[in-house]
Amino acid sequence: MATITLLTDFGNDDEFVGVMKGAILSVNPSATIIDITHRVDPQDIVQAAYLIPSYYKYFPKGTVHIIVVDPGVGSDRSIIALEIKDHIFLAPDNGVLSLLLDSGDIDAAVNVHNSIYFLTPVSQTFHGRDIFAPVGAHLSLGVEISKMGTPIVQGELLRLRIPKPHLTDAGELMGAIISFDRFGNLVTNIKLDDINEFCGPHPGSKPIFEIGKSRIEGLSKSYQSAGLETPLALIGSRGYLEIAVNRSNAQQRFRVEKMDPIRVILAK
Amino acid sequence: MATITLLTDFGNDDEFVGVMKGAILSVNPSATIIDITHRVDPQDIVQAAYLIPSYYKYFPKGTVHIIVVDPGVGSDRSIIALEIKDHIFLAPDNGVLSLLLDSGDIDAAVNVHNSIYFLTPVSQTFHGRDIFAPVGAHLSLGVEISKMGTPIVQGELLRLRIPKPHLTDAGELMGAIISFDRFGNLVTNIKLDDINEFCGPHPGSKPIFEIGKSRIEGLSKSYQSAGLETPLALIGSRGYLEIAVNRSNAQQRFRVEKMDPIRVILAK
Amino acid sequence: MATITLLTDFGNDDEFVGVMKGAILSVNPSATIIDITHRVDPQDIVQAAYLIPSYYKYFPKGTVHIIVVDPGVGSDRSIIALEIKDHIFLAPDNGVLSLLLDSGDIDAAVNVHNSIYFLTPVSQTFHGRDIFAPVGAHLSLGVEISKMGTPIVQGELLRLRIPKPHLTDAGELMGAIISFDRFGNLVTNIKLDDINEFCGPHPGSKPIFEIGKSRIEGLSKSYQSAGLETPLALIGSRGYLEIAVNRSNAQQRFRVEKMDPIRVILAK
Repeated sequence: MATITLLTDFGNDDEFVGVMKGAILSVNPSATIIDITHRVDPQDIVQAAYLIPSYYKYFPKGTVHIIVVDPGVGSDRSIIALEIKDHIFLAPDNGVLSLLLDSGDIDAAVNVHNSIYFLTPVSQTFHGRDIFAPVGAHLSLGVEISKMGTPIVQGELLRLRIPKPHLTDAGELMGAIISFDRFGNLVTNIKLDDINEFCGPHPGSKPIFEIGKSRIEGLSKSYQSAGLETPLALIGSRGYLEIAVNRSNAQQRFRVEKMDPIRVILAK
Repeated sequence: MATITLLTDFGNDDEFVGVMKGAILSVNPSATIIDITHRVDPQDIVQAAYLIPSYYKYFPKGTVHIIVVDPGVGSDRSIIALEIKDHIFLAPDNGVLSLLLDSGDIDAAVNVHNSIYFLTPVSQTFHGRDIFAPVGAHLSLGVEISKMGTPIVQGELLRLRIPKPHLTDAGELMGAIISFDRFGNLVTNIKLDDINEFCGPHPGSKPIFEIGKSRIEGLSKSYQSAGLETPLALIGSRGYLEIAVNRSNAQQRFRVEKMDPIRVILAK
Repeated sequence: MATITLLTDFGNDDEFVGVMKGAILSVNPSATIIDITHRVDPQDIVQAAYLIPSYYKYFPKGTVHIIVVDPGVGSDRSIIALEIKDHIFLAPDNGVLSLLLDSGDIDAAVNVHNSIYFLTPVSQTFHGRDIFAPVGAHLSLGVEISKMGTPIVQGELLRLRIPKPHLTDAGELMGAIISFDRFGNLVTNIKLDDINEFCGPHPGSKPIFEIGKSRIEGLSKSYQSAGLETPLALIGSRGYLEIAVNRSNAQQRFRVEKMDPIRVILAK
C-alpha cells in the first residue's frame, strides 16, 4: 500500500489538485493519496517550509511527499527528489525543503530530469500535473530515485534565508510569528529548546513572552490552562511556541501579522 | 475494506487533518479515510452534534466515525468509544454525541484510556493525532472497543442542553435556526414529526412558518417548488425543516443568525 | 481498482460530500473516490461545464465522473449517463456536459431512471446521495450504463448557450472571461487554435490582448516570462488563454468580472 502526500498552494476552488490525482492514479491505480493542505498562501515558500517537518514523520515509511509551491514553474529552476529517513520528497529546488534539510541527513538526492517518467508534452504552467504527479507515482511504485535524474550533493541545494530566533544585545530572545492556524493561534519560530537554552543559565527562572504591549508569563500545558478569554503561551503540536487565547482568537486579539516580533525575557 | 470518517473543526488551511491521516495509515495502511467536513465552526459542539445523525447511517456497517470538536483537549475531559447500530464512534465526552444518543440504543460504551493504542508521548494540544487517530485505526482493524478502556453506562455520558422545539402558551410551535448550508438555506431544529404532531389535531390544516416578519405557507417538495427568488419551506436532506429561496440565498434574504427563532402556526 | 471523481457545488462546509462518499462505499467498498472540487459557484452550470474537459482525460480509462451542479434537483429534469472515450459521465441533463459533447463522440447515452440502483426512498432535495452516488458506484463495479435506463440520442441532450469567441465587424477576435483561478489568473474562452486561426492569414504578426484599457503584447511561455508585477498572456493548463501578472493577482489588478470581454487584435 503506497502512500503519497500532497502539499500545494493550489487551493480547493479549481480542478488542479484533482488533475494531479488523476495523473497519479493513471500510473499507480492503488496509491493512497492524502492531502496535507492546498491552502498554503499563494507562492509562500517559507510557510510551506515550516509545515513539512510537522507532518512527514507521522506517515508510514516509504511515503512519497510531493510539494508544489512553485512560483518558478516554467523557469529554469530544477526539481529535486530526496530520500531522508526512509521518506521520499519531491519538490521544486526553491528552498521549500530548507527546514527539512536542517533536521536530517539526506540519504540520496537527485536532480529530476528523466522525461520518460513525465507526462508529455510537458506544459510550462503545470508541472504538478506533468512532472510531479507521474514521477511521484513511479516513486510510489518502488522505482529508485536514482532513476529520475542525476545525483546532486546537499551543498548544491537552494536554501532559504529563514528567520531564526536570536539573542539581542539587550539579552532578550527575539523570535517572529510565522503563521496562524485556524483557531487564530500565533505560531512562532521559537522551539522549546530555544527557550530552555535561554532560561538554562538561570535555574528556576521563568520566561515572559511579549507581543506588542502584552506580556504572558510562563509556559502553559494546554489551551485550557488559562482563564476564559485569557492569553497563554505553550508549545504547540508542531513543536513551536504558540500564543493562544483560551476559547478565543489570539490573531484577532493581538492584531499581529506574519513576521511580527515576539520577545522572550526572564522574570526577575 | 475498513472505512474511517473524520469530522473536525480543524479547517483545511493547516496540516492537522493530514497528520491525523498519516497516524491512521501508520496503524492501518489499507484504511479508507473519508472527510465529512473539517469546517465545523471552531469549538461549536452543537453544530457538530446535529451533523452526526445526518451522515453516519449512509456508511457501511463497521465504519469508525472519529469526531474531534474538542475545546477541552488537554483538560480532564474523557474520550469515549461507542458502538451503535453496527457503527463505532470515537469522540470527546463533551456532549457532541448527544443527538446520536437520542436516536439510538448503545450496544457498548467505553472510556478510552488504554495508552498502548496511543501515539507516545501524548501531547496536551493534539489528541486528534496522538489518541483519536491511532485508536480509530486499531478499531478499524477489528480490535474490540472493550480493549480501549473501561465500560461506562449511558447515564454517565455528558449530554448537551440542545434547544428543542416546544409549544408556547400561545399555541405556536417554536423552533430555532441551527445552521446554514452553503446555499444559504436555513436549517432548523424542527423535524417533520414535530410538524405532523403539531398539525395532527387539526386535519386539513396547513402550517405557516414565520421568520421575523415573513410568512411562508405550507411545505414544499423541492427547492424549485416556489417561483424564482421566492421563499419556501421544506424538509431538507437531514430530516429537518429548512427555509430556502428558490435559486437564491435565504440567509442573506432574511438576515438571520444561528439560534434565531422560527415560529409555526396553523392557517385558519 | 475503480475510480470515481466528484464535481459539485456543495462546498466543503457541510456533510453533503461525505454523505455521497458513504453512499458510494456502501455499494462499492473498494472504490477510489477523488474530489475535483466542490467549490463551483453555487448553481453555476457554465463554470462546471468548462471544467469537465480540463480534468477527465487525466484519469484512468473506465473512471466514472459524477457531476452534481444541479439547480433543478427535484424538478422534472432528467439524469443522464454517457460513455465517451472510455470514460463514463453521470450528470443532470441541464447542459453541464455541453463542452464535453463538443469535444468528443458519444459511445452511449442513457436516461437514468432504473430505480433498483437508487437509494430509497429518493428525496426531492438530495439526488447526489440518493441517485448519483449509488448509480455511480454500480457503474464503477462494471454494471453497463444501458442497465440504468433507456437510450437517448445526442440531439435530445440539453445544450447550454455557451459564449464562444467571435470575430467582430471591426476584425477583432472578441472573447470573454470565464473564471478566475486561485492565483487570480483570468481564464478566458479563447483557445490557442482560435488565436492561430485569427493570426494565420498574417504570417509573422503578433496578437495583442486588450482588457479594459490595458494591452498585452504576444503570448508568453510561462508565468515568469514577464517582469515582476508585469501582466502577461499565455495558454494555461486548461488549454485556454489566460491573463496573469507575474507573482501577483490579475483579478485584483484589472478589477474585472466573469463575462467581461477580452479583445484580440493584431500588432501592425
